[in-house]
Amino acid sequence: MTTVGILGGGQLARMMALSGAPLGLRFLVLDSTADACAAQFAPLLQADYRDEAGLAEFARRVDVATFDFENVPAESARWLAERVPVFPNPRALAVAQDRLAEKTLFQELGIPVPEFAAIDSREGLDAALARIGTPCILKTRRLGYDGKGQFRLRSPADADAAWAALGAQAGTVGLILEGFVAFQRELSVVAVRGRDGELRTWPLTENWHEDGILSASLAPASAGAELESQALATARRVAEALDYVGVFALELFLKDGVLMANEMAPRVHNSGHWTIEGAETSQFQNHLRAVLGLPLGSTRAIGHSVMLNWIGAMPEAAPVLAEAGGHWHDYGKSPREGRKVGHATLRADSPAELAAALARVGKALGRGAQVAPPVARLQGG
Amino acid sequence: MTTVGILGGGQLARMMALSGAPLGLRFLVLDSTADACAAQFAPLLQADYRDEAGLAEFARRVDVATFDFENVPAESARWLAERVPVFPNPRALAVAQDRLAEKTLFQELGIPVPEFAAIDSREGLDAALARIGTPCILKTRRLGYDGKGQFRLRSPADADAAWAALGAQAGTVGLILEGFVAFQRELSVVAVRGRDGELRTWPLTENWHEDGILSASLAPASAGAELESQALATARRVAEALDYVGVFALELFLKDGVLMANEMAPRVHNSGHWTIEGAETSQFQNHLRAVLGLPLGSTRAIGHSVMLNWIGAMPEAAPVLAEAGGHWHDYGKSPREGRKVGHATLRADSPAELAAALARVGKALGRGAQVAPPVARLQGG
Ligand SMILES: Nc1ncnc2c1ncn2[C@@H]1O[C@H](COP(=O)(O)OP(=O)(O)O)[C@@H](O)[C@H]1O
Ligand SMILES: Nc1ncnc2c1ncn2[C@@H]1O[C@H](COP(=O)(O)OP(=O)(O)O)[C@@H](O)[C@H]1O
Ligand SMILES: [Mg+2]
Ligand SMILES: [Mg+2]
Repeated sequence: MTTVGILGGGQLARMMALSGAPLGLRFLVLDSTADACAAQFAPLLQADYRDEAGLAEFARRVDVATFDFENVPAESARWLAERVPVFPNPRALAVAQDRLAEKTLFQELGIPVPEFAAIDSREGLDAALARIGTPCILKTRRLGYDGKGQFRLRSPADADAAWAALGAQAGTVGLILEGFVAFQRELSVVAVRGRDGELRTWPLTENWHEDGILSASLAPASAGAELESQALATARRVAEALDYVGVFALELFLKDGVLMANEMAPRVHNSGHWTIEGAETSQFQNHLRAVLGLPLGSTRAIGHSVMLNWIGAMPEAAPVLAEAGGHWHDYGKSPREGRKVGHATLRADSPAELAAALARVGKALGRGAQVAPPVARLQGG
Repeated sequence: MTTVGILGGGQLARMMALSGAPLGLRFLVLDSTADACAAQFAPLLQADYRDEAGLAEFARRVDVATFDFENVPAESARWLAERVPVFPNPRALAVAQDRLAEKTLFQELGIPVPEFAAIDSREGLDAALARIGTPCILKTRRLGYDGKGQFRLRSPADADAAWAALGAQAGTVGLILEGFVAFQRELSVVAVRGRDGELRTWPLTENWHEDGILSASLAPASAGAELESQALATARRVAEALDYVGVFALELFLKDGVLMANEMAPRVHNSGHWTIEGAETSQFQNHLRAVLGLPLGSTRAIGHSVMLNWIGAMPEAAPVLAEAGGHWHDYGKSPREGRKVGHATLRADSPAELAAALARVGKALGRGAQVAPPVARLQGG
């Protein structure tokens, strides 16, 4: 009997436990809150990530540990890794936690990235602005997610406002300035690497964001063989450099036929949720297979899928459930503004059927704007 | 927040909870044993099915109740149904618990059945033997499963041995004598009926038994449109007669183009496990959708699937996981002779690919005999 410890008890841990149960696994979720949604389906150890007694108990009770939450303090991950196998390894986690470290790595590996500069001071911001130009984005190096911790500068005159918004964090989580990429599409590649070094990628996924939060994903993105192999090569380079084990995602900008790397998520990723119904093996199950040293499952897509994120509160389920390929995912969370509370996946054999189903769901739920971009893409736009 | 109570905490409850979690449901499992395998992923209320205090607490804590175990005492189901909605209804449960009641119902509905007779005494057995002839099978009316509680008679001379084996149960669970059907194939139809009366069936499944226990299932059985519609009509007649809500299975014998009904399972069924990966919606999720009055999901098959049961102990997982369409289901049970401890599903786009994958798995696991019948069928046998 193998127990997998998961640091963080959100929807990713929840879906991982549900997906790993058929492998005969037990789970233990470490989370600081009693109402962590993963705890509805897996035992919870309630403790802070920095609480050494909690970590010690966690280490005693699990055979291997992994992450639902990428911002577990790197020291905690290292402390744990001295006691129990931890995948991905703490160094990979540390790099992916820090926008500066990850972009620096991408650059060293020859992977195209937006222009960027570390920002330590107001003068540093001015100097970087002079070099990178506008539009650009000032971001916190650490702890940003769902578009939080970002300020967009349209002209150098926005420097004061940007500094007022984020300057205080220069000395804590750190800041980075990035050139704004006028991309044609946002894509992501979700990849899994086994303990033996085998690497597999799911088909490229196209993503649309709303207010910095993922709104919809379409897979396969049908971006063509050339981009698929670019994505695979990029994922392989990153994974090998970090000796990565498990699932990770690379968020990519497609600009003029080139894939630029935006950021890396050292875990299962929202843009891979479609794999639960839309691929032969889901990202959740393959993550566990990788972590446990089991054979990786096929990452091929089954038909065409669109994932719609539910932010803040769950809509009515019936219009999705009434679709032949409609699948519902309620994370069992209480509603809260800006919170990811669930998603739906629509699956169909053809792009045309999928577009029609999406349009019906968008109409029934009054979410025409959310479904419009994938509908347009499926219709050849 | 809706809590579904499940009477019985075996693998069916476990897979139901795993499948229902994405609907945002909570579960409560009632089982008399502390190590019920469903309790690894859902809260457990440990109590006997006849313990009124336990049932009362169960009723207080759930919004709706259903079954993992069909042999919950009918009185307990009725007691519960006075306090909380119970699906399927206690009458349907009572009929399906009793081979005599279910065969009598099938007959009343004009559904072909093997010859049968209720047996109350040794004289009754002789009389029934004279009418039905041999070969035939003496079975307990209630509580039989996996071929248990059965005695096969090849000639009238076996009557003494049959009575010695089962006669003592004539006054407790009751006995039935059935004519032995020299069927060409064993099939099953898994069906779901919603609260609103909508009925859907998954494609017919072909089943092979070993020592009375299901060994392998192939779906779709590709039995032809005529048999599919016979099966649908049969399922509809039974479900409507019982005002059935939820998933049920009819075990069928195919003899000379006619489907005869063997028995009914008033719950999700082992021959429907392939629907987890092999159908758009699994039997587990559709059972919950039905019980909750939600729209039913599509029952269409995705490609071709074979389910292999693991009896007694789990084999090595790697050969299955290494197949592109290989899916593993370890129920988290301790090994025990004759016990269903897990299953695997192999899925492929074509019969030929599926046959090849099955043959590889059979060879790697030393289970050539188990995979041989579905391989032969897939190869056109
Ligand atoms: N350099 C950039 N150029 C253009 N758009 C960007 C850039 N950085 C971020 N964005 C947009 O903002 C979204 C969120 O930013 P990201 O850096 O991925 O942070 P988060 O951690 O919140 O996902 C991206 O998906 C993209 O749409
Ligand atoms: N009347 C019969 N004629 C031929 N075979 C039978 C008959 N009854 C049972 N069997 C065989 O025995 C198996 C198990 O019997 P069944 O009545 O379905 O009991 P269980 O509740 O154990 O599944 C069936 O699947 C079938 O292979
Ligand atoms: Mg991002
Ligand atoms: Mg049977």
